Amino acid sequence: MSRTLRLAVIPGDGIGQEVVAEGLKVLSSALPADVKVETVEYDLGARRYHATGETLPDSVLDELKGADAILLGAIGDPSVPSGVLERGLLLKLRFAFDHHVNLRPGKLFPGVKSPLAGDPQIDFVVVREGTEGPYVGNGGSLRTGTEQEVATEVSLNTAFGIERVVRDAFARAQARPRKKLTLVHKNNVLVHAGHLWKRIFDQVAAEFPEVTTDYLHVDAATIFFVTQPERFDVIVTDNLFGDILTDLAAAVTGGIGLAASGNINPSGAFPSMFEPVHGSAPDIAGQGKADPTATVLSVAMMLSHLGYTEQAAAIESAVTADLAERGSLTAPRTTSEIGDALAARVAG
Amino acid sequence: MSRTLRLAVIPGDGIGQEVVAEGLKVLSSALPADVKVETVEYDLGARRYHATGETLPDSVLDELKGADAILLGAIGDPSVPSGVLERGLLLKLRFAFDHHVNLRPGKLFPGVKSPLAGDPQIDFVVVREGTEGPYVGNGGSLRTGTEQEVATEVSLNTAFGIERVVRDAFARAQARPRKKLTLVHKNNVLVHAGHLWKRIFDQVAAEFPEVTTDYLHVDAATIFFVTQPERFDVIVTDNLFGDILTDLAAAVTGGIGLAASGNINPSGAFPSMFEPVHGSAPDIAGQGKADPTATVLSVAMMLSHLGYTEQAAAIESAVTADLAERGSLTAPRTTSEIGDALAARVAG
Ligand SMILES: CC(C)[C@H](C(=O)O)[C@@H](O)C(=O)O
Ligand SMILES: CC(C)[C@H](C(=O)O)[C@@H](O)C(=O)O
Repeated sequence: MSRTLRLAVIPGDGIGQEVVAEGLKVLSSALPADVKVETVEYDLGARRYHATGETLPDSVLDELKGADAILLGAIGDPSVPSGVLERGLLLKLRFAFDHHVNLRPGKLFPGVKSPLAGDPQIDFVVVREGTEGPYVGNGGSLRTGTEQEVATEVSLNTAFGIERVVRDAFARAQARPRKKLTLVHKNNVLVHAGHLWKRIFDQVAAEFPEVTTDYLHVDAATIFFVTQPERFDVIVTDNLFGDILTDLAAAVTGGIGLAASGNINPSGAFPSMFEPVHGSAPDIAGQGKADPTATVLSVAMMLSHLGYTEQAAAIESAVTADLAERGSLTAPRTTSEIGDALAARVAG
Repeated sequence: MSRTLRLAVIPGDGIGQEVVAEGLKVLSSALPADVKVETVEYDLGARRYHATGETLPDSVLDELKGADAILLGAIGDPSVPSGVLERGLLLKLRFAFDHHVNLRPGKLFPGVKSPLAGDPQIDFVVVREGTEGPYVGNGGSLRTGTEQEVATEVSLNTAFGIERVVRDAFARAQARPRKKLTLVHKNNVLVHAGHLWKRIFDQVAAEFPEVTTDYLHVDAATIFFVTQPERFDVIVTDNLFGDILTDLAAAVTGGIGLAASGNINPSGAFPSMFEPVHGSAPDIAGQGKADPTATVLSVAMMLSHLGYTEQAAAIESAVTADLAERGSLTAPRTTSEIGDALAARVAG
């Protein structure tokens, strides 16, 4: 019996196209022979916006619903006003498909250089809430463009939305050897949202007696990211704090060229979406300079989410082996050379 | 003719008392003989809250208005619900006295170990807006304590409030050798507040043609704080982003034991307030283990703000010399030994 994986691919802008091609290459080489990948590519991003004014037409959104998963490269270009593609495409997808678990590992692979001194051990995962907080797009501006302008941004937080992501994070912590979960917020200033997060966190904690818990203000958390990153196992946090912390996590673990992410809808009601944390990097686009590793690791997260656990592990091992050898390479490899090397390791 | 400096002192909680004592010691030794310091100490913080339920009585707020400046140690204790003292005392002071310029240098002193590899050169200053953004306390909670709870936090941003702090930051950049100013926000997601910040920033930039400008999203900024901190000169940013970035800045420049801050009202309508960035550290309180250097550097900022530029410079030189020698010390010094050493250097 052959199985089919219906994969929607959104290469997007800048280096998106290049890294996605390598992700698909490694995907093919990882999957068992009886699994057929059916990819449909969607032309979304700056080019389409300039050509048609569209960011994410309803018809495309509808089609995407039928996919088993979405692989996204990168969204954003300086030629488009800031926010148009982010809000109109990337965040629209995350919200429309209720991607409330935004999963972002922070792992320093052996052989990878951290900007931190003393070769720290870093292996944590950030569970970033993906559908609430200051990202809801609930803001506005009065007397726009004048000296009297007032602009607001409203952070919306619900017990429902917090509980489901907190429960997901506890389950992930429970499944890891160290079984530790840190809540990060700023409940000494953002008292309403912060106290709600803390209340739900403490409540769900009672169901996971084996998990050690901890709370840190976001400012203190950034300090520990650089002074004691080994203290973290699983972190659960709000959408905006998660955005900031995961870029910092990428930085201390060797750069955003390696940082994978999954925008996950655990219910399966809508397809989950996998994307590297890095942006479209227009300055190096089209030159074969982008590192596709973050996309390849995002493909591994996708496989793991879809139940192909062994294949996901094979990709991770390939990446681990490849990274361990990079230090001894005499010349930098191109995007597709890295993809080829990873695909070969996975196949072998 | 003798002059009098009326200084309000709020030692606060935990290590606050200890570090403030050293700050005052160094202050006395720095000031010219004809300047008399008149200190009035205010008992505010956890102890008072437990005894009377008060955080900042109106009568105290009124008295504080008459001071030339305020020196604050640290506020916060685990025995008090999170947010009560922060919102009811520390933030109340910042808002009541319109401390819109929250000044926080990020400087790696010679001889101080950074957690970053490769001995980076770090010397920037963050101008954090202090009276707007998500800190305004405009939030609430509906169906509190139930499964249907909804909590909001509103970020309020005004053209007026942004312009004054942006102009202050440009003037500071203009006065520094590198003349570079970076705006940090998240205008691809928080589009209303973000676009207002960017519009005002670009507008004021036209008045400072010599200043090189740059914009970074807050997530990208955290990456550069650890990978390329030397790229920053002056940074201007919103209240919450500034909170996060300045703790990270403290971490990469050797820790919050050295991070000074000024909550400044440039108009002089109300007294400005100077405080170390660190918290009350109840775990080491009363043991003489706290490093008073951040408070001493905050005293230097205070002197500079009050026009005692030479004396401020003398304290900074004393700290620089002391830090350069710390590596060669055989035993750690106590809080008061560090204060004594700094006072002696300033006097000598
Ligand atoms: C591009 C932007 C909207 C996005 C975010 O803020 O979530 C990005 O920074 C990320 O972390 O995936
Ligand atoms: C204690 C807290 C309210 C405060 C803040 O968030 O501003 C502190 O973190 C700081 O940076 O001064």
